[in-house]
Amino acid sequence: MIPDCFLYLRLTLNMELSKLGEFGLIEHIRKMMMRRSPSVLLGIGDDAAALKFPASASVLATTDMLIEGIHFDLAYTDYYSLGWKSVAVNLSDIAAMGGLPRFCLTSLGIPPAISVEHVIDFYRGCNAALQAHQTILVGGDTCSSQQGIVISVTMLGETNRKREITRTGAKPGDRIFVTGTLGDSAAGLEILKSASKKGGARGEKNYLKRLTQKHLRPVPRIEWGRKIARSHCAHAMIDISDGLSSDLAHICEQSGVGAIISAEQIPLSRSLVMASSDLKKSKLDYALSGGEDYELLFTAPSGKVRNLHSLGIPLVDIGEITQTRKLSLVDSRGVTVPLKPMGYNHFARTSLSEVFKN
Amino acid sequence: MIPDCFLYLRLTLNMELSKLGEFGLIEHIRKMMMRRSPSVLLGIGDDAAALKFPASASVLATTDMLIEGIHFDLAYTDYYSLGWKSVAVNLSDIAAMGGLPRFCLTSLGIPPAISVEHVIDFYRGCNAALQAHQTILVGGDTCSSQQGIVISVTMLGETNRKREITRTGAKPGDRIFVTGTLGDSAAGLEILKSASKKGGARGEKNYLKRLTQKHLRPVPRIEWGRKIARSHCAHAMIDISDGLSSDLAHICEQSGVGAIISAEQIPLSRSLVMASSDLKKSKLDYALSGGEDYELLFTAPSGKVRNLHSLGIPLVDIGEITQTRKLSLVDSRGVTVPLKPMGYNHFARTSLSEVFKN
Repeated sequence: MIPDCFLYLRLTLNMELSKLGEFGLIEHIRKMMMRRSPSVLLGIGDDAAALKFPASASVLATTDMLIEGIHFDLAYTDYYSLGWKSVAVNLSDIAAMGGLPRFCLTSLGIPPAISVEHVIDFYRGCNAALQAHQTILVGGDTCSSQQGIVISVTMLGETNRKREITRTGAKPGDRIFVTGTLGDSAAGLEILKSASKKGGARGEKNYLKRLTQKHLRPVPRIEWGRKIARSHCAHAMIDISDGLSSDLAHICEQSGVGAIISAEQIPLSRSLVMASSDLKKSKLDYALSGGEDYELLFTAPSGKVRNLHSLGIPLVDIGEITQTRKLSLVDSRGVTVPLKPMGYNHFARTSLSEVFKN
Repeated sequence: MIPDCFLYLRLTLNMELSKLGEFGLIEHIRKMMMRRSPSVLLGIGDDAAALKFPASASVLATTDMLIEGIHFDLAYTDYYSLGWKSVAVNLSDIAAMGGLPRFCLTSLGIPPAISVEHVIDFYRGCNAALQAHQTILVGGDTCSSQQGIVISVTMLGETNRKREITRTGAKPGDRIFVTGTLGDSAAGLEILKSASKKGGARGEKNYLKRLTQKHLRPVPRIEWGRKIARSHCAHAMIDISDGLSSDLAHICEQSGVGAIISAEQIPLSRSLVMASSDLKKSKLDYALSGGEDYELLFTAPSGKVRNLHSLGIPLVDIGEITQTRKLSLVDSRGVTVPLKPMGYNHFARTSLSEVFKN
């Protein structure tokens, strides 16, 4: 955030949204989020933004919609975290291509009774996530909504032409890697829901806080995605938004292959292990079917494993891509069982909370 | 629409959305909307689309959100028109920059009970508007919504670097032009609302149909916007989405100038004139404060008027940009009166129906 906008914030913070009006709000946000960059030929406030990309770049574009009551619940998320997460999940899609995020457009549908402080908190959260990755807000839309908050974020990024890593390149024999612990976010969501039912007391245990933090403020793996792309080692990549089993299934389906992963190898955080007794499902269930960890999952030939380990990313090898087009799990007893994709599927009334998809 | 997708449509048209599921729906839409283009390195179905723009181009980006009950009412719009319009209003923003639309991302939040036929009709409408302007759907998001339909469209376009026409360049002495008749869309909306109250009978009068059509299926002025840009005559341009008085106010505010327009010069359609007795407000009120006509408004020095008239666009000169920073209207009696911006402002509880803003 640019320093002088704090003053501006104080001046208008007590105004009701209905007094500020749409154009007042847009102007407020414009001042709060303004960044000068030679790449932004025209930013917020005209009919469209005008942007400059390097001549050799491919432009990456992804968008996600978040709807109150479906993707989030204000009983257990604050507005700042909501802004952060709305941006972070889109940044994560750019990370999954090995790309560099550049520009963002954020639309917000706001129920008329909402306080202007909350709207500004939302944009402060967006701003923090954007600033953390040198990405600039260049446009968006604000409008009123009759029932609940609606958010839509579009992220534009860039990558060297034909160097983006898709979901379609996995090959039999490839090792399957993930960039961090899984299941934390879904466990964090359960903790938040349970605390909300009990009247908001989430407890003071650090391991619970770490899990809820993973759910509320996910960290997109931009730098790691770019390192993996630059290494030229990965055949296919995705970010784990729907859940390990679902996202691995996407890679396999789109690459025309199968996979076998080992339950024992799936990285679990110490916090998740410590929280086990507080949770309804097994640690492994959270890791397999809990979405929104936003770690990267990618496949690479086994000959490249040494190069990968020199990248300085905490990679974990969880299994192998197979010719046979099915998903299997070697469980903790060493028995191979079918692995069903168990992430969230809108309209199908299945489990868990959220899904984002370009 | 590509011919072979009709077969695919027939095969799945009777499935319920809950059976088809999110991924089934995405696959369905992908097949329906698929276009091959050397500019689309990677289209629908990965974490992000990868797109190629000419090295010398600026990338234009704009986004709009449409929420049921705020921006549209299913009592008087069909799903096909809703899809058409969601895309058209974003195309219009690219037109207002003098740009060429290239790629589109469309997100849709759908109440679970909605029929798959309606969802597909919506995308057919999107598809028709995109095809009419050689623009390609490259991504989006589909998710469930608890209450009502939510739509977010992002449009990416291109323009020769620094040739985009902004809102900030209007100069005192510039003539003010519009590209077509005004007030039709707002009058059309009133006719639709009134017919909806009477149980759907809109009558068979052609002039009423033409007005409702202008509201439901606006035509973005892409070709005209590009011609105006190529002529290098225009100092500032905007599309009339909020209403003539509001959008002229945007130009004036952002250019630091004022304007005086003549009521007698504002172009009114024969349909609007014929419908006058069916409507609650005066023709001029619709033209001044009725939004969503999606005609272009631009300013140009008077010395360039002859060049402009050779472009083959039905331009109408409605007034002049002034040094004094106020808006005035010369009314039909020749009396100069202040002109108040009267378009829709979300959160301010003013008049009319809709607003779109980058």
